[in-house]
Amino acid sequence: MNSKDVLAETRYSPDKMQKTNLFETKNFFCDVYGLEPGQEQKVHSHSDNDKIYFVVEGSGEFLVGEEICDLGPNQIVLAPAGESHGVRNTGGVRLTLLVFMTPNPNRR
Amino acid sequence: MNSKDVLAETRYSPDKMQKTNLFETKNFFCDVYGLEPGQEQKVHSHSDNDKIYFVVEGSGEFLVGEEICDLGPNQIVLAPAGESHGVRNTGGVRLTLLVFMTPNPNRR
Repeated sequence: MNSKDVLAETRYSPDKMQKTNLFETKNFFCDVYGLEPGQEQKVHSHSDNDKIYFVVEGSGEFLVGEEICDLGPNQIVLAPAGESHGVRNTGGVRLTLLVFMTPNPNRR
Repeated sequence: MNSKDVLAETRYSPDKMQKTNLFETKNFFCDVYGLEPGQEQKVHSHSDNDKIYFVVEGSGEFLVGEEICDLGPNQIVLAPAGESHGVRNTGGVRLTLLVFMTPNPNRR
């Protein structure tokens, strides 16, 4: 079966945020991001793709569009297609994020 | 900002599994399912839509295609388009599932 343990799959590096792919189809991809304290995914946008961030562990500062908010475990945020978005681990522990993007920009 | 607390959004009922929508666009929907012990989502399939189940809290027995497995917190499973799938709360506590489906079958 296509099942995975998200925390066991997560990678971290002192150099930068690490992305690990869990699943992908033509419709979407699902990654897990591991961010050490202070690491970030810089603000960027995708014109045609919606993204979801779900906080598995840790906490961070999320930017979507013009807004910034702090999110912790079991909180979730939507960055709709075209909206700029990014995240920084502002906490003292590792930040683990489940990330969905649809449609899958790698399968065009 | 489009952020939500998944556990605060989850509803449960003694009658049956409850679905609460968190986000949707033309590309996907994201729901949270609340299942009391013994409740289930019966086996079904979607010919064109991929579904992800992510266990937020609790545990359950998942069927995808011909396979059955038990999953607990922070485990995730893909039911690709066309594969039959379902879930039953076989534990003694509430089961909370984050669910993604793409493309969004409600926006055709």
